[in-house]
Amino acid sequence: MSRILRVDMSSSRATFEEVPGKYRLLGGRALTSQLIKDEVPPTCDPLGKNNKLVFAPGLLTGTHAPSSGRLSVGAKSPLTGTIKESNAGGITAQKLASLGIKALVIEGQPSNDEFQILVISEDGVEFVPAGDLAGLGCYELGRKLWAKYGEQCGVISIGPAGEARMNLAGVSTNDREGDPGRYAGRGGLGAVMGSKGLKAIVVKTDKVFDVPVQDPEKFKKAARDFTEALTTHPVTSQTLPTYGTAALVNVINEAGALPTRNFSSGRFEGAAKTGGEAMAEICQQRGGKGKMGHACSPGCVIRCSNIIPDENGDVLCAPVEYESTWALGANCGIDNLDHIATLNRLCNDIGLDTIETGVTLGVLMEAGVLDFGDGPKAIELLDKEVRQATPLGRIIGSGAAIAGKVFGVTRVPTVKGQSMPAYDPRAVKGIGVTYATTPMGADHTAGYSVASNVLRVGGYVDPLKPEGQVDLSRNLQIATALVDTVGLCLFVSFPLLDNEKALPSVVEMINAQFGTNWTVDDAIELGKNVLRTERAFNAAAGFTAADDRLPEFMKTEPLAPHNTVFDVKDEDLDTVFNF
Amino acid sequence: MSRILRVDMSSSRATFEEVPGKYRLLGGRALTSQLIKDEVPPTCDPLGKNNKLVFAPGLLTGTHAPSSGRLSVGAKSPLTGTIKESNAGGITAQKLASLGIKALVIEGQPSNDEFQILVISEDGVEFVPAGDLAGLGCYELGRKLWAKYGEQCGVISIGPAGEARMNLAGVSTNDREGDPGRYAGRGGLGAVMGSKGLKAIVVKTDKVFDVPVQDPEKFKKAARDFTEALTTHPVTSQTLPTYGTAALVNVINEAGALPTRNFSSGRFEGAAKTGGEAMAEICQQRGGKGKMGHACSPGCVIRCSNIIPDENGDVLCAPVEYESTWALGANCGIDNLDHIATLNRLCNDIGLDTIETGVTLGVLMEAGVLDFGDGPKAIELLDKEVRQATPLGRIIGSGAAIAGKVFGVTRVPTVKGQSMPAYDPRAVKGIGVTYATTPMGADHTAGYSVASNVLRVGGYVDPLKPEGQVDLSRNLQIATALVDTVGLCLFVSFPLLDNEKALPSVVEMINAQFGTNWTVDDAIELGKNVLRTERAFNAAAGFTAADDRLPEFMKTEPLAPHNTVFDVKDEDLDTVFNF
Repeated sequence: MSRILRVDMSSSRATFEEVPGKYRLLGGRALTSQLIKDEVPPTCDPLGKNNKLVFAPGLLTGTHAPSSGRLSVGAKSPLTGTIKESNAGGITAQKLASLGIKALVIEGQPSNDEFQILVISEDGVEFVPAGDLAGLGCYELGRKLWAKYGEQCGVISIGPAGEARMNLAGVSTNDREGDPGRYAGRGGLGAVMGSKGLKAIVVKTDKVFDVPVQDPEKFKKAARDFTEALTTHPVTSQTLPTYGTAALVNVINEAGALPTRNFSSGRFEGAAKTGGEAMAEICQQRGGKGKMGHACSPGCVIRCSNIIPDENGDVLCAPVEYESTWALGANCGIDNLDHIATLNRLCNDIGLDTIETGVTLGVLMEAGVLDFGDGPKAIELLDKEVRQATPLGRIIGSGAAIAGKVFGVTRVPTVKGQSMPAYDPRAVKGIGVTYATTPMGADHTAGYSVASNVLRVGGYVDPLKPEGQVDLSRNLQIATALVDTVGLCLFVSFPLLDNEKALPSVVEMINAQFGTNWTVDDAIELGKNVLRTERAFNAAAGFTAADDRLPEFMKTEPLAPHNTVFDVKDEDLDTVFNF
Repeated sequence: MSRILRVDMSSSRATFEEVPGKYRLLGGRALTSQLIKDEVPPTCDPLGKNNKLVFAPGLLTGTHAPSSGRLSVGAKSPLTGTIKESNAGGITAQKLASLGIKALVIEGQPSNDEFQILVISEDGVEFVPAGDLAGLGCYELGRKLWAKYGEQCGVISIGPAGEARMNLAGVSTNDREGDPGRYAGRGGLGAVMGSKGLKAIVVKTDKVFDVPVQDPEKFKKAARDFTEALTTHPVTSQTLPTYGTAALVNVINEAGALPTRNFSSGRFEGAAKTGGEAMAEICQQRGGKGKMGHACSPGCVIRCSNIIPDENGDVLCAPVEYESTWALGANCGIDNLDHIATLNRLCNDIGLDTIETGVTLGVLMEAGVLDFGDGPKAIELLDKEVRQATPLGRIIGSGAAIAGKVFGVTRVPTVKGQSMPAYDPRAVKGIGVTYATTPMGADHTAGYSVASNVLRVGGYVDPLKPEGQVDLSRNLQIATALVDTVGLCLFVSFPLLDNEKALPSVVEMINAQFGTNWTVDDAIELGKNVLRTERAFNAAAGFTAADDRLPEFMKTEPLAPHNTVFDVKDEDLDTVFNF
């Protein structure tokens, strides 16, 4: 019987609670968002004692459903002020689920500045003073925790940025190699964890796939169908395992939508040097520990991750994803993959969201703090200024929206205070609708229209025209809320969109696990409800239609090479949630 | 016939326009707010080309109405994101009005980084490259402009902070001694002026009281009545001329409402050393240019201003007002009046709002950047870091709300991003209602409930109880909108509240000037309309009831010595504008 583990950091007390009926068929994002909505005052200070940090494995996490190892992390975001869910792969979600923990709720706040480690095992919960572990980067922290608690334990942690309560601090989870590079990066959830005095959560169990299933035979069949959908779709079976997510660099650059030098062009002349093909070449040339086609969590059949080697074949950074190589590359005018991987590793170590970091650096480059293309200076800024939390480091650590205000920059690519990812909305207008309207602040994963706008998965909607984008984004936002709830990796969306058997097989796995009798429509309704819940929280926090807009400059400044502006009408944006 | 002067900084063109009928009976705040509402897109970037900066003398400014020399400055605020009006004394409003300029609208934005000086005279308008004047502090700038354009010319200017587009940059105006210490300080309007490439506006004319009046005899009689009201009320005739506004330090400290060390207590042990009585003593002891009872603009019969001398009798700072001596004193734990006056002078020179600066320093003290009470370090931060726009200087220059976010501080006394003035709302609950609900962000001048809550002017409402505060704030906010529209100094409110002849005499002056037939109710309706206009702008900019709230900590953290929290109910706050 799964339970909710509630941890009060004011009193260092942990209690297990039965799962209320209304939460039984919620998981992942649906559960984190519902708990936040039910328990967190919408106008509270995100770094104060009234905010809560919720971890929840997905509905199917801990079963043998393929690619279902995601961990949702939720809170009121210090970056956006909205409700926030960010999810990550790694090995911890399956361990939590296998221990019967449906949600872990961190609440309260210690009255001193001491950090603690929370150790969760089959024996219960232990609070351990962090001592010398406080202040460590996530790499060294992870090594020390494995040395102390055993290899293969799950580690959720924050770096110095989270301890310093920086807005762009993410929450790290580790993979089977112990690498901390699997991030619930967005929205400053690492700062919330820091504000709770929690340096790390260790989940100590060998269990991975131990979640009970009511009808194993039915489950096995549905899982087989779903696996087949994943292993036969060209994106999930060929592109992603071969070149990783960074295969997109050349594709999006070709589409004229790769934001370059703080969103001032859609083409980067150095793109090819920073993409998945270049990564595969480096792995081959340098050998050693370099690897494409790496799985970030057990049971993933897509294996889009990678390990980028340094010149000696040692691990330089694992993984370097599309978003990171873009944010720290093209967006900063940096075309040196070693510089990019080093920046990415620094982000992982200090505990920073790579997207927010790269966009913030781009804004500072526009302000003249450093030059576009200056990788070594960017490395120095992260390693010295941000790690040490100097004034400049804290400005970077506050994210692009605040850095823009501090430096008086008006070209700041954010929505609701969160930086835009690697698709310029002037050249991929469906993603612009998602950026503008998702309850999360600018977020590509909330409704990945790029699939249809550029990759022609699930049909085709011309990316340069305003028509059809609202419907596209709406449907994807609903579907994504469901995917994030089930605990599936977002990349299952490609077969979900193209293969009519895929979604029914997911619903069938849920039915087999929980003894329900859901239809596909019931599952879609769950996705809609997640969005309704999140929108209700945001409305109570003071968000209105005026917040569901892109930055002013994107409506007036044409983007090369297509020379288009974002021209989806405001009144159309306001219909996204008409369902 | 008065006209609107419209200045396009994109093309360096100035044009005079006839005043549309709908603006004829608007002035000051009513006119700046209506123009902003009519011409500025509510969601535009405040530092972008679509914002406008509007200067408007009040309806009676430039006549012989006593204490009517205020200049309203309006824009969309980069600090708050709301509509903003901030007004100042000095000599320029009367000159503009006497030149027949009802409003000066600065719009557009230059495409380069060059600054210009706008010279307005009876001969027309001239654009002069700022050249070496760019980068100067307001003191040296003012001296050079007087040397070039003649003593007694009006100078509106920004310091280095405004040029650097810092959120807490104010707009300076000068007095008859050429001192630039008369500030439309609040809301970052200096940053808007900086974003327009405008270093200074010189108003070159000897005219002061040259605005035509339709019925001079009627006007003279009404002005005499109003003067009598001002010169017989104890606050405006005795307290203010003798001890200046800083007479309040001991009064508010006694009331337990003087925010001390970043709003952590309502009593400051060093209060007496920083108040008006101490200032009067220093003026007497040091002599020289020191002076109490100084008038900031021609025709003021209150003369609340002062000139604080240094040890040699030279001018240290003019004036040191209550808000400034509090913000840079008690709120920072600083009790050395020379340090406070030096900080104030630095604010005037660099072009900073003293309230926002002091509150921001208090937040940084709470963050441990410097110690409470460390005046020399605070001086160094302003003179070195802010003036040079270093990263730390830019954090300070961004105001308390952003500085709090950058440093992860949760005790940040702001509303809508603007710092609270010198009355803790837990001990003066009427002012808390005003802070929370005024369209301006936390602002004591928008509805000065302290009058009735503490000074027992216009009746008495117990400051520690939630009852009656909403009605008090509502009535004062309406009356204040009227006062700011007429161009009267806010301090006329004391007789307005206590003397039933005062308001009719103001209305009578308006009738005599414009040939209208207004009743007192008509005037009150004008005040209500100003608030409606401002609220409509803010709603379109995305502000909701959730923004009409005090910071969370003030609802839960009791304030010594009364140990009260702010407990006016949210639903009552939401009735302030029910009229």
